[in-house]
Amino acid sequence: MKFQVNSEIQYQVLQPSTFILDIHALRTSTQTILEESLVVDPYLRVEEFSSAQNANRFIRLEVVEPMNFKITYKATVDTLTRVIDQKQEKGVVPVVQLDGDIIPYLFPSRYCQSDKLQRLANNKFGKVENTFAKVVAITDWIYENVEYLSGSTDSQTSAYDTVTERAGVCRDFAHLGIALCRALSIPARYFTAYAYNLNPPDFHACFEAYIGGHWIIFDATKLAPLNGLVKIANGRDAADAAVASIFGNVVCQSMQVSSEVLEENFEPFFYDSKELKALSYE
Amino acid sequence: MKFQVNSEIQYQVLQPSTFILDIHALRTSTQTILEESLVVDPYLRVEEFSSAQNANRFIRLEVVEPMNFKITYKATVDTLTRVIDQKQEKGVVPVVQLDGDIIPYLFPSRYCQSDKLQRLANNKFGKVENTFAKVVAITDWIYENVEYLSGSTDSQTSAYDTVTERAGVCRDFAHLGIALCRALSIPARYFTAYAYNLNPPDFHACFEAYIGGHWIIFDATKLAPLNGLVKIANGRDAADAAVASIFGNVVCQSMQVSSEVLEENFEPFFYDSKELKALSYE
Amino acid sequence: MKFQVNSEIQYQVLQPSTFILDIHALRTSTQTILEESLVVDPYLRVEEFSSAQNANRFIRLEVVEPMNFKITYKATVDTLTRVIDQKQEKGVVPVVQLDGDIIPYLFPSRYCQSDKLQRLANNKFGKVENTFAKVVAITDWIYENVEYLSGSTDSQTSAYDTVTERAGVCRDFAHLGIALCRALSIPARYFTAYAYNLNPPDFHACFEAYIGGHWIIFDATKLAPLNGLVKIANGRDAADAAVASIFGNVVCQSMQVSSEVLEENFEPFFYDSKELKALSYE
Amino acid sequence: MKFQVNSEIQYQVLQPSTFILDIHALRTSTQTILEESLVVDPYLRVEEFSSAQNANRFIRLEVVEPMNFKITYKATVDTLTRVIDQKQEKGVVPVVQLDGDIIPYLFPSRYCQSDKLQRLANNKFGKVENTFAKVVAITDWIYENVEYLSGSTDSQTSAYDTVTERAGVCRDFAHLGIALCRALSIPARYFTAYAYNLNPPDFHACFEAYIGGHWIIFDATKLAPLNGLVKIANGRDAADAAVASIFGNVVCQSMQVSSEVLEENFEPFFYDSKELKALSYE
Repeated sequence: MKFQVNSEIQYQVLQPSTFILDIHALRTSTQTILEESLVVDPYLRVEEFSSAQNANRFIRLEVVEPMNFKITYKATVDTLTRVIDQKQEKGVVPVVQLDGDIIPYLFPSRYCQSDKLQRLANNKFGKVENTFAKVVAITDWIYENVEYLSGSTDSQTSAYDTVTERAGVCRDFAHLGIALCRALSIPARYFTAYAYNLNPPDFHACFEAYIGGHWIIFDATKLAPLNGLVKIANGRDAADAAVASIFGNVVCQSMQVSSEVLEENFEPFFYDSKELKALSYE
Repeated sequence: MKFQVNSEIQYQVLQPSTFILDIHALRTSTQTILEESLVVDPYLRVEEFSSAQNANRFIRLEVVEPMNFKITYKATVDTLTRVIDQKQEKGVVPVVQLDGDIIPYLFPSRYCQSDKLQRLANNKFGKVENTFAKVVAITDWIYENVEYLSGSTDSQTSAYDTVTERAGVCRDFAHLGIALCRALSIPARYFTAYAYNLNPPDFHACFEAYIGGHWIIFDATKLAPLNGLVKIANGRDAADAAVASIFGNVVCQSMQVSSEVLEENFEPFFYDSKELKALSYE
Repeated sequence: MKFQVNSEIQYQVLQPSTFILDIHALRTSTQTILEESLVVDPYLRVEEFSSAQNANRFIRLEVVEPMNFKITYKATVDTLTRVIDQKQEKGVVPVVQLDGDIIPYLFPSRYCQSDKLQRLANNKFGKVENTFAKVVAITDWIYENVEYLSGSTDSQTSAYDTVTERAGVCRDFAHLGIALCRALSIPARYFTAYAYNLNPPDFHACFEAYIGGHWIIFDATKLAPLNGLVKIANGRDAADAAVASIFGNVVCQSMQVSSEVLEENFEPFFYDSKELKALSYE
Repeated sequence: MKFQVNSEIQYQVLQPSTFILDIHALRTSTQTILEESLVVDPYLRVEEFSSAQNANRFIRLEVVEPMNFKITYKATVDTLTRVIDQKQEKGVVPVVQLDGDIIPYLFPSRYCQSDKLQRLANNKFGKVENTFAKVVAITDWIYENVEYLSGSTDSQTSAYDTVTERAGVCRDFAHLGIALCRALSIPARYFTAYAYNLNPPDFHACFEAYIGGHWIIFDATKLAPLNGLVKIANGRDAADAAVASIFGNVVCQSMQVSSEVLEENFEPFFYDSKELKALSYE
């Protein structure tokens, strides 16, 4: 499915500052970038680099004196998803069979303190046998118990806070989902995305759980179709995949994000708890 | 410098369990393993795997029924350290010049919530100009303000706790040092080690800060000579480099760790705040 | 109902220390002390004092040099309870009608951070109309979701921890019940007690919620009959009603607590969710 | 010294709500209210009540339908302070000699988790012998290490947060001071006040420590003269002495607070660390 994604961010730089931004669509075997452009106005030198672990496409800018600038990213991206039937899938991949690269996603991270949620996760979801159904139950529980409330949380908010305070935004929903999965020994990772039909438009954050040998996509906010995502970055949590990490004194003045589908036959896909049909971007 | 390191751990397995252990000495350009052996008694199949990011040498065992077992690791390791004069070193490597692989060590992690310690770190250490001296000041402050107290903390304790509660073990000292470095935009990473002359003998945990293009070693506990370490594992924090991650129901019955120097001319090296001489294992 | 209650505590005092103990049965209009004795062996001067707010009967001892001592309290106590039908009780007493002395029990306290649990409490219990049934639902939820696990918590553990970690002892169960009540604007207070048929025997902690003008008793642990309690102390939480507050360096060597019923017709009373019959010690 | 104090608060009530406000000047043996008035516009019935423990003068209003209202309090108050020389004062009042009514101020409370700060308090301030000088050292340390930053904290922020995050407002400065005192077995209580020369004008929060048998006043913000305070309410912390506790859905639209001195010879009093002269409002 082809999407046209755009983001435009304006910054007011008050003191010399360094920016690490992660707004480029990811290149993967199932996500092809047909065309893309990045414009910084006024012109500033931009350096692109990748993380070894996740292939995220970071850019780095240095601003040496106070100024305003605008950064605009546009891309046409073709994504491929597949539906994987989970009826045969009896349980989680045993830790003993997990690939070494998957194992880090079992461990707690800054915003996903799975070590503190073991008892809760086991009590609530331990009895669901099918692993996919178990993670769907986790997202349903988050959806029902956590209120989506803009401005209720900040960059320090973690799953440990959200599980009690019961309010947050997409990032918090994803962190809580990940923490609960890992607490049940299901590897889980965070990702950011351009999301089609997200309202209000913004960068989106979701998560993937590793089930039956595939990374399966989940979105506890249920705000956007699961097959309408263009991935930006993978990571253990938002510490690995922040849209912007800024070292300096900067005000973000505006941020506009959009995603449009370029084909006509787009059928929004959401999970139906009765059918065990999982979606993967692999 | 050559060391003979040993560890012997006995477990009582109560239910089928999977172990991920990280007790092998790391192989690096400056750490050569001359000889090593791993024995599990009674025999259990052991699989070795590495993490892509850190080259840590994990092993994995599956125990399918209740039993007791003992795992014994022995190695002869040759390490190379070098002393780097820091007098010329005026400041931290600017973020804009950091290698992409180093950048993740700037971000907060499970046990090192650097995002919460920015103000404290800046107030206390912001004025020290020389970066090496700044990190030495951090370790001195930890050493003076945090009591080394066995049993005072557990696997959930993080830098955020230790900065207030002021007690902990080597792992907590390292986490707090790392968090304070990252809060000052100095990349920092955690490592575990076999430590010569550590008393009482145990696995040790220290940290490295990235200064002037090198990973420089620090130990806020000051319990062992800086040049007497055999590295086991690197990571962002203990979540990446745990000695043992156990999925199941297991009692650790005993743990014995030792490290002996095999050469005669070992001169213990500690930092002297007057001399800006840093030690690196690179 | 008449009870014979006893407690015997042995301390090893390592340095000059001051003890504030609260082990005496409370004197109230419905709890009469028929006989009581306090023996400290070897003899130490004991001063009794009361708190203005709660009438708790504290004792204070000063030990000026290292020594061992044993304190033994025995009392015969007659308690009066009454069952209050809650069918007519439609809702909580409006804040505007609460007596000034009750209002402090609406506010958060050290171990009962009701301000952080508002959303959770409203989501889970907001729809239960009858106030008594609402608090029974709270205790049932705690009973089902929190594991009673000796040694899992310590004197710093609060309701905010327990709501996530899901394990604790009677004190933690009470704190969580109180915090959830207050989050719903139901006044709630903590109390300690000698409990008949508590197994293993120990000091017990429960709570009362202010419903329809009466303090109604609740015990989320369900470990002892509600009509078998001899009250020791009331308070906002354990900070007001600790069994022992020790200023100094002391080891508690043993603690033995017992309660026996002195009449023959004792019928254990527990709540039955179908019948809206509440128990009060007023 | 005579002061004219005023406060005017405007609320927009969105749903039926109950207000508990605490804006009246306290009546004590050293604080006389010469004249006072309370006007609610439009007229609403106001009920005054006191807490048994602290004699705080609460008022309670019920608003049964959406409306806007303004509450205006004015008072002329005469306060008496005295300076107490602390040179003779060698130490804290031993717990064994404290009056029963003072003891609750030794224990941790919602926003003053003194139990978590013992080690830090002892390390930093344990060696100062004179108790008054010790608390002055605490306030100096807070003043130097915590940034006064409007809007940096909220009603859930506690001393445990502030000790690490190092930013806050008067309420947070007071909570941290109290927590550190209690951690050192010095009774300490919170109070709110109208403060002369506070800039910007607002309700103020300070604390008192119990030294040598008197409640001595402290203000870690150093924003207003210590002898220019008109007390509103005492309490263990802000949970006891909130300016406004609102049960309902209300927006505070404006708040204006002022205090003027009515005599000519006002000489601002601040502590001088060289002179051991303490100020008490008793």
